[in-house]
Amino acid sequence: MLVAKETELRRRYDVRWRLTGLATRRAGWVADPDGLSPLPILNGHWPPRQPRRDVREWLENARADVLFEASSLVAQTGQPAIEHLKAALELDAHAITANKGPIVHAFRELAALAHEKKRKFLYEATVMDGVPIFSLFPLGLPATELRGFSGVLNSTTNVILTEIEKGRSFEDALKRAQSLGVAETDPAADLDGWDSAVKATALAIVLMDVPIKLEQVQRIGIRDLSEDKIRSVRAAGMRYKLVCRAERRGDSVACTVQPELLLASDPLANLEGTSSAIRFDLDVFSISIVEHNPGVEATAYGLLADFLRAVQP
Amino acid sequence: MLVAKETELRRRYDVRWRLTGLATRRAGWVADPDGLSPLPILNGHWPPRQPRRDVREWLENARADVLFEASSLVAQTGQPAIEHLKAALELDAHAITANKGPIVHAFRELAALAHEKKRKFLYEATVMDGVPIFSLFPLGLPATELRGFSGVLNSTTNVILTEIEKGRSFEDALKRAQSLGVAETDPAADLDGWDSAVKATALAIVLMDVPIKLEQVQRIGIRDLSEDKIRSVRAAGMRYKLVCRAERRGDSVACTVQPELLLASDPLANLEGTSSAIRFDLDVFSISIVEHNPGVEATAYGLLADFLRAVQP
Repeated sequence: MLVAKETELRRRYDVRWRLTGLATRRAGWVADPDGLSPLPILNGHWPPRQPRRDVREWLENARADVLFEASSLVAQTGQPAIEHLKAALELDAHAITANKGPIVHAFRELAALAHEKKRKFLYEATVMDGVPIFSLFPLGLPATELRGFSGVLNSTTNVILTEIEKGRSFEDALKRAQSLGVAETDPAADLDGWDSAVKATALAIVLMDVPIKLEQVQRIGIRDLSEDKIRSVRAAGMRYKLVCRAERRGDSVACTVQPELLLASDPLANLEGTSSAIRFDLDVFSISIVEHNPGVEATAYGLLADFLRAVQP
Repeated sequence: MLVAKETELRRRYDVRWRLTGLATRRAGWVADPDGLSPLPILNGHWPPRQPRRDVREWLENARADVLFEASSLVAQTGQPAIEHLKAALELDAHAITANKGPIVHAFRELAALAHEKKRKFLYEATVMDGVPIFSLFPLGLPATELRGFSGVLNSTTNVILTEIEKGRSFEDALKRAQSLGVAETDPAADLDGWDSAVKATALAIVLMDVPIKLEQVQRIGIRDLSEDKIRSVRAAGMRYKLVCRAERRGDSVACTVQPELLLASDPLANLEGTSSAIRFDLDVFSISIVEHNPGVEATAYGLLADFLRAVQP
């Protein structure tokens, strides 16, 4: 995405970048303050593999101004992503993440650290990829009160429910989701609603300003939904979806993740494939935002948009 | 809306306001730099009626820092709203409008004047009320290319098509829309697609940066759609909606307004009452935004949000 948008970043925003570090499970940890060439890397020609290092040492060697954190979610702890982001901020780099774990487990700490270091901690890519959800509120919807939200935010369960509606068995539908690359080899985090619960918690913490914990989300996955039930409501013009819901109740927020029966006319019901949707109920009106069948570049764009928000004056 | 949000504006944004002028067809033109009391006015106790004055004289007497322009649309000229907004900017006041005519007929001129005077020309309330459409692009979706959009943006035709689907005649459906207060006594601007065409043109001019003219929009209203046709497709799970569509074609934009047959699963199809929706096709993904059954306070909020954007540092 940085390569694809390089000319536009230069011309429209006067922003230039240099790739000075790269760390993946596959390729090890590489740092070079003079810059790594992105095109060979995109073509699979990686720099010589180096042993795993301490994240601080790696960031220092790279002389990082910005860290993009895109490690896998560990729902129960948010680690090691939290440590990566803390290290970046402590070393005066902006910290941008596509991993929602740190919001759920360390939002206030990371936000305070960023404020103290006058750097940005940004996380637009964590929910609905690059669709501006978190960015919408301070600037797009000033002086509003968010009373609640409801969303269908998990692709795997979306694909599975759709395939069962079409007549496939649960097992075949799961295989289909795995072949599409949306479901993990161990799909428990999706099927049991953990992924949805983490997203709902992150949204409630940031947008409703309540320190809710993941354990407080009432969570029911889709495993107990029978294939017959899923198909029979479809004939009546309705659909089951795994819905996240949050509602302000005084000082706190009641948060649920569960299969819900939706009317076909509901914007949350008409989602296929990797599409997702969220409805925000504000004091002034209610709006829904739908993301249509995004690919992996949608997440990359979310990170790029945060990069621009961080480095622009 | 200013009264309802007064405490929040003070506490959250340190913003205070004073109402120093008021001009309506009903109550004439009133100005008092010491401030008019809003609560009696909201209760129908208007200041003594004054004769209609020149807008410049009125703004000067009011010592206006901000003008809220909410006159009715004159699709063919954009007047007198353009003159009102120009006068405000020339007198160093921010110019905020809910009237889309000035965007269609004088966008570049007003934007240039605002830039020159270091004041804001803002217009979020012109399309989908206070839903952040125009605000979304510079900040929420940086470095994207908008390739096209499609929207259902007119309430009157929405209500009429829904009522015909339910079995009412065109005439009864129109009366229903008028009794709901969404249709004008002369509903031609809605039925013939003028309102939709003005909105599509405004969106194309601002978001796609092309100087398209209202006459370039290919426009077909809903008058020639037969009641039978509308009802028969409904039975097949489809709906007619009056759709605005814009698509980039090289340096220009092809823009249409016409009744289109939509699948029930389309977010643009599932709109009742005053709801509206728009889909944006960007290079990085496609998103839809739906506004659910807003009332008149949604437009007022749009003006308030622009007010905050104008006066905040």
